[in-house]
Amino acid sequence: MSQPVEKMNNKLSVEDLEDLAQGAAFLGTGGGGDPYIGMLLARHAIEEFGMPEIIEPEDLDDDATVFTSTMLGAPTVLVEKAASGDDIDLSINKLAQFIGKKPDAISPIEIGGMNSMIPICAAARMGLPLVNSDGMGRAFPEIQMVTYNVYGVPTTPAVIVDEHLESVIVETSEAKRAEDLIRVCAIQMGLSVMISCYPLTGKQVKNYGVSGTIGIALGIGRALVEGRKRGEPVQAMMDLLRSTKYYNHCVELFDGKVTDLRRETTRGFSIGHCHIEAIDGSGDLLQLEFQNEHLVARLNGNTVAIVPDLISVVDRETGQTITTEGLAYGQRVKVIGTSAAPVMRTPESLAVFGPHAFGIEEEFLRIEEIHNLV
Amino acid sequence: MSQPVEKMNNKLSVEDLEDLAQGAAFLGTGGGGDPYIGMLLARHAIEEFGMPEIIEPEDLDDDATVFTSTMLGAPTVLVEKAASGDDIDLSINKLAQFIGKKPDAISPIEIGGMNSMIPICAAARMGLPLVNSDGMGRAFPEIQMVTYNVYGVPTTPAVIVDEHLESVIVETSEAKRAEDLIRVCAIQMGLSVMISCYPLTGKQVKNYGVSGTIGIALGIGRALVEGRKRGEPVQAMMDLLRSTKYYNHCVELFDGKVTDLRRETTRGFSIGHCHIEAIDGSGDLLQLEFQNEHLVARLNGNTVAIVPDLISVVDRETGQTITTEGLAYGQRVKVIGTSAAPVMRTPESLAVFGPHAFGIEEEFLRIEEIHNLV
Repeated sequence: MSQPVEKMNNKLSVEDLEDLAQGAAFLGTGGGGDPYIGMLLARHAIEEFGMPEIIEPEDLDDDATVFTSTMLGAPTVLVEKAASGDDIDLSINKLAQFIGKKPDAISPIEIGGMNSMIPICAAARMGLPLVNSDGMGRAFPEIQMVTYNVYGVPTTPAVIVDEHLESVIVETSEAKRAEDLIRVCAIQMGLSVMISCYPLTGKQVKNYGVSGTIGIALGIGRALVEGRKRGEPVQAMMDLLRSTKYYNHCVELFDGKVTDLRRETTRGFSIGHCHIEAIDGSGDLLQLEFQNEHLVARLNGNTVAIVPDLISVVDRETGQTITTEGLAYGQRVKVIGTSAAPVMRTPESLAVFGPHAFGIEEEFLRIEEIHNLV
Repeated sequence: MSQPVEKMNNKLSVEDLEDLAQGAAFLGTGGGGDPYIGMLLARHAIEEFGMPEIIEPEDLDDDATVFTSTMLGAPTVLVEKAASGDDIDLSINKLAQFIGKKPDAISPIEIGGMNSMIPICAAARMGLPLVNSDGMGRAFPEIQMVTYNVYGVPTTPAVIVDEHLESVIVETSEAKRAEDLIRVCAIQMGLSVMISCYPLTGKQVKNYGVSGTIGIALGIGRALVEGRKRGEPVQAMMDLLRSTKYYNHCVELFDGKVTDLRRETTRGFSIGHCHIEAIDGSGDLLQLEFQNEHLVARLNGNTVAIVPDLISVVDRETGQTITTEGLAYGQRVKVIGTSAAPVMRTPESLAVFGPHAFGIEEEFLRIEEIHNLV
């Protein structure tokens, strides 16, 4: 019997990084930063410091100390800037100094394009293992939108470090206040900063994390490569997703051409919408709304997928994910909707990152219900 | 021979607080927060914790650790909110924890209305002596505008605490960056926050501080009280100033009525101008520009006093200082210009808080030169 795609068995090579980045970009649902730049950063760190050990959540002691490492900014800016590495180290070392505990492992808080790679850099640079898990199983624009917050883990202390190695340590009793403060600091610091926050215990990672997401991202990337050889990368990727524990409801929502696009950087976010017209000339129209990540997809006005379920736009030929920053008029794309992990769909989680958290009035509806897959 | 007004001889009583607040409001040159609220806060702290010992800078060991304690915000908001005390304690205790050193004394960084009082609260609450000295001998709107910064003392680590006891610790290598970050945090935190920053050594306080300013503020307040009995409070206050070491050039710039006022809270500051028409019907016009504090006074277009020299607006009958927030159409006022301390007028200091630092194109001219007093 083959190993499930979720498990890594500590087998990650430099050659895997490109596949991993491709898969993470898909799970990033349009956000999470440019996967290519993230990959270059990770490759550079691994060449200098060696590949970090990849461990599973269940390998962690309950009282292990796990630090997250993430980049925060508008994707527009993240594309322009990149972490030097010293900023990553400083954010982690300052957090360790501040709480008086050294980390035993590093974990992503989101599995977006760049933010799946930054933790690899961090783990490599610090000589620590990387946990095959994250705090959302996708990407989200705000720092309170993490399962750890939903289930009571404090967001702070959060250490923010900019390219000049200036730093800010935020401590709040409430995650949204942390987000608000971190956001204004990030804007002031140039909208591309390194953060270490949500210091976790091993038990918290096991209980509230979305496990196996690095493995799944790698699996998606590999499926794309294999699928391209057969001329059906999108189908191959969807088959892979359907074989997983919680991305198993996966729907091709639309096949079309980008005909309208509006995108602006506001309050530190990339906010906008994208209209896609059917490739088959039927006149069908898919409308996407995004805040860094895609939030809702409406086909001729009817919702066909909604946050926190995943909405990803991919090139219809290569299957490569197009981030919200990469969207351009005339692109021929497929739009894929995918079920989020169960921990992301609880009433507690929906209160923090369901449709209402983004100002969308309608209720969350599971993609498998919308499309009668169950 | 009588003791110079600069020296306190550890003689401060609760009854002195009102006089001290009045004098500090004058030195605050329109800013520094509402002196009355500051006084209430200080009185409350002293009733609960006792009067702190007041020491002179020369009483400090060179290697003593001195913390500053200050409130930051737009005066508009400072009038509405006040420190609970817990926020003061937290800012100081967090700074101590962060740098691994407990303070031996507390010192103001500015001698404005409220910010002369907050350090009294802090010293009382912490059971520490208060140093009779500050970092500007007046008030200024920005946190890098301090002699300590001019002479190389780092502004950070700076601990910012809001009314909810949320906190931010800022560390930068450059004071203006610290100001920018502290400002956006202060705005996000409600524009009325407690800060402890510029951790100082005793030697730095002795070398770069503006000494004796608490004593002088108290002296000004007492002179006002005595002067009112004789019906000449403004004259009495000016006589007192002329008896001091560095406020000795003191000029009545104008006697008039407020006829135009424009004031708005922008970028976290109270920015505006005030026009005053001569009381004698001559048609002379004095124009004041301010950013929290008064920056320049122009009489019929000619500069008659300019930052960092002090410009204060007082009620023409009572001599009570009117802050830029307290200015109102129709008020009958006198405008007083006063020389700043020598350390405030060096080329190094003028680079940090001379006219150009506020976007005023003209060069600094000493008030005693403008008015041919020397």
